[in-house]
Parts: sequence; C-alpha cells; structure tokens
Amino acid sequence: MNQEEILKAMKEGRRIMHPAYPYEEGYLTDQELKKPQPPLVKEPMCETSLPLPLDFENLDIDNDFLHVINSRQSHRVFTQEKMNLLQLSYLLWCCQGVKEIRGKSYATLRTVPCGGARHPFEVYMTVKDVEGLKNGLYHYLPMGHRIECLKEEDDLKDFISKSLEGQVWAAKANVVFYFSYVCYRAEWRYGIYAHRMNMADAGHVTENIYLAATSIGLGGCAIGAVVESLCNEKFSLDGEEEFIFYAMPVGTVSEKNRKEEKDFYRFVEEEGL
Amino acid sequence: MNQEEILKAMKEGRRIMHPAYPYEEGYLTDQELKKPQPPLVKEPMCETSLPLPLDFENLDIDNDFLHVINSRQSHRVFTQEKMNLLQLSYLLWCCQGVKEIRGKSYATLRTVPCGGARHPFEVYMTVKDVEGLKNGLYHYLPMGHRIECLKEEDDLKDFISKSLEGQVWAAKANVVFYFSYVCYRAEWRYGIYAHRMNMADAGHVTENIYLAATSIGLGGCAIGAVVESLCNEKFSLDGEEEFIFYAMPVGTVSEKNRKEEKDFYRFVEEEGL
Repeated sequence: MNQEEILKAMKEGRRIMHPAYPYEEGYLTDQELKKPQPPLVKEPMCETSLPLPLDFENLDIDNDFLHVINSRQSHRVFTQEKMNLLQLSYLLWCCQGVKEIRGKSYATLRTVPCGGARHPFEVYMTVKDVEGLKNGLYHYLPMGHRIECLKEEDDLKDFISKSLEGQVWAAKANVVFYFSYVCYRAEWRYGIYAHRMNMADAGHVTENIYLAATSIGLGGCAIGAVVESLCNEKFSLDGEEEFIFYAMPVGTVSEKNRKEEKDFYRFVEEEGL
Repeated sequence: MNQEEILKAMKEGRRIMHPAYPYEEGYLTDQELKKPQPPLVKEPMCETSLPLPLDFENLDIDNDFLHVINSRQSHRVFTQEKMNLLQLSYLLWCCQGVKEIRGKSYATLRTVPCGGARHPFEVYMTVKDVEGLKNGLYHYLPMGHRIECLKEEDDLKDFISKSLEGQVWAAKANVVFYFSYVCYRAEWRYGIYAHRMNMADAGHVTENIYLAATSIGLGGCAIGAVVESLCNEKFSLDGEEEFIFYAMPVGTVSEKNRKEEKDFYRFVEEEGL
C-alpha cells in the first residue's frame, strides 16, 4: 500500500466509529415499509438437538460481583481439563439466553442488550472435552436453550488455529465460540445503519462470556482476527447473508499458568516499552 | 436515496461486520515501524480534579451474579432522585478503571477488555443530582480514578436530548456518559484495522455499565444515535483525532415505572407485531 492508499483506508476505518447522524433524508427501512419481519432465530440445522440444563444451583458461581469484574482478565493458556455441560450451558445462557418474547414474535429479550432487541447473532462452537458431549461442531438454539451437533469431529486443532489466523493457543480451549451475523435480522429494522452498532452489541455478548467464565473459574479471550471463509465453510454459512465475524475460545485455566500467560507480552519487556 | 445508492450503502455497512483478513501485504503499523507510542490517557483538561472514593464496602451491591445478569434490562424512565458519588465512582471504576500498568507505560489493564489493551476511549459526562458534585460537564481521569469538572451548568436538558437525536427521556438521567474515541491510541498498534474491533470494545464498556448499574439498583440504556458535532463542541473535541461516538444515560429507577418503560414499545402491540 502506498501512503495515499493507507490514508484512504484509515479514513474509511475511522468512519466505522463515527455516528451516522444526520440520517439520509427520505430513506425508509424495511420495517418502516411494513415488509414482513425475518425469523427471530435460525431454524435448527439438524433433526435432533439436546436440551441444556438450566438449573445453575449446583454451579460454583463467584457471587462477589465486584470481584468478578476486578478479576476478569484475558486467558490464553488452558489446562485442558474437562469442562462439564452445566458450565457450557451457563456460558451460553449468560451470553445469548432468551428470557422473554416481546409481542407475538417481534423480538427476543435476552441476557445481553442489543439495539432494538434484534439479536442478529447465531452461536456456533467447536467442542472438545466437555462432559456429556462428543467432540465436534455445534450450534446453539436459543429458543428452548438447546444445542445441536452439526458434526462429530475429534481433532479440530488445525481448523481452530487456522481459522483464528494461526493463534494456536486457542486450539487448547474446551470450547471456541464462533459468532455469526445474520444481516437482515438487524437490517430489517435499521437498514443501512444497522451494522456499526451491531459490533458494539457483539461486545456486549463477549463481555458477558468474559464475566460469566470468570465467575465459574474458566477463562478466555475474544478474537477479532477471524478467517471468515474457513469458518463459513466449516459451519455451512453462505458468507453473504450470514457469516462468522468474531470468536472467543474458553477453557479451563489455572493460576499456575500465570507466567505462561505473561509470555504473550514478553515483547513489552524485551522492547523496553 | 435511489435503490442503487441504498444497495451500495448496505454493502458498505456490511463490510463493518466482515473480518479484515487477509491483511494488506507489506502494510506496517506505526508500532511495527517503531514510532513513539501516544499517551495512554488524555491529559487533564483543568487545573483541579476530585479524587473518587474507591472503597465500595458501603455500597449495596447485588452479589448474586446470575441475578444481575438475568435482571439487567434497558431503562429509559428515571425517578430523578439523587445518586451519590460512590455510585458514580463505582460505575466509572467498573467500566474504565485502571487496575495495572503493563511495562513502563505500554498499556493500561482495566476492568474491561480491549484489543491490545489500547483502551482508546475517554469518558465525559453530564451530571445532574449527584451528591457532592455540582451539576455540569465532567471528564473522567482513569489514572488515579479522579474526575474533573469542565464546566458547571445547571440545565443540560436541551443539550442532552438534542445530542441524542431528540431522545428526551435521557435528560432525566443523573449521568449521561459520552464516550469519545481517541483514534491514534488504537491506530498506533492496529493501523487501518483498528476501528472495527474498537466498536466491540465499546460494547464491553457499556455492558459493564449495564451490569454494574443493575447491581446497585440503577438503570440505563446505551445509545448509538449520537449527534457528534454537538457533543464534540460541548466537550471541546476536535472531531478528527477525538470525537464522541457512543453514549449511555444512567439514573435512578423504580419497579413502579414498569408500565412507563413498556410504553416505549407500545407500537409492538398497536401494530400487532
């Protein structure tokens, strides 16, 4: 890239952060045009699915709220112990669980906020060493709080690290959440203005995973560096109307790996920053 | 806008959600070019500032973590009672508090995650009816957990509702957080790729405010519909290197206003959605 191209790309990038106001005069969204609303969630992709436990009584949750906030950190070193299904269920509930339906089928109210309650995300997962589940690819069904196994697959290491631009540490996570964006679910209401705020909405989702994971002694780290084409292919998404845009590996962690965690920032010391 | 322009704008919008991979070959960020790093926070804008209390022992925090997650909701009806300084301090701590410095001055580690720990945001506020503070405009100083009063101003109603595209309900909040983006703080490390993930990082910040507010019986609602020029002028930002991009009013709330809260969605019933 020459300097001119860099400046242009930088300017375009900054536009993402700028609010869209003033709006285009006379522009109407499909909701304003009274077009029919798209479904609130994606249809199941398989014939069978598994109900997830919703009774979190037996989960050892850190109930010191401020301690959870203060002790949250990025984790990139996993101990590769087993996770249990209740823990996975809790993470999914905390990040996308449906608490209520607004209207006949106007919106899902979930455990995270989202502009206009559109919730245009779907959650896919690679699963490894989760008690009660075969290793493989899964999809969360927020209605009814269920998951479906898209494909049993024992060794997903290669896919995980390649799909996250070579971040090999992620392949040791028990679960890698891959978030997709179902464009029209948000565009129906917000049209050409939908996308910018949906990135913030995605941050609401991963922050709840960070905190929920912290509250039960697990850890992870959200990742924007996603190789979309690989992920779309793996989860059979068309890449136009739905595509993977964000990911978060979560796994078992230990205080003992504090030094290894810090090694990810060795350059700070080495370069005297 | 004609159909062609709408399709173009929609496509541009969707690009915000698509990951940037593959990267531009040969492009180097300023960090990679070993250029000096910008400051981790903005310099104080005034001569004096006020330390915020950091002992949250006396705050009545809901320490049932899952209850906080489950009971979070958007609040747009405020009771206009007084808030106290400890509550405001807690909200600021939970959304931008600095826990540690990495390296000599490489990064701040905060109560929220942020890509590369760049934390390119500043927090400005309108304050109304907060015990111990005069009404007016404030700026948070995360180093030392202090705030500075930019200007005493008793009636900010007009500014608040105009700056949030006529959302008059927001003017009844005790505090409206206005978040600015300091571009180069993120661009130094991530260059032309900085911006997209920073919107997700902004979602981390507001989600922590949602949850922290819920945990102490306050409420609010994040707002993307910000009239940037009005906000930039009010907080003396240049609009190029730093600009307001996101906001969140927070105030005292009550279960009694459940019906008024629901009135914001009356159209759902009226339109039979």
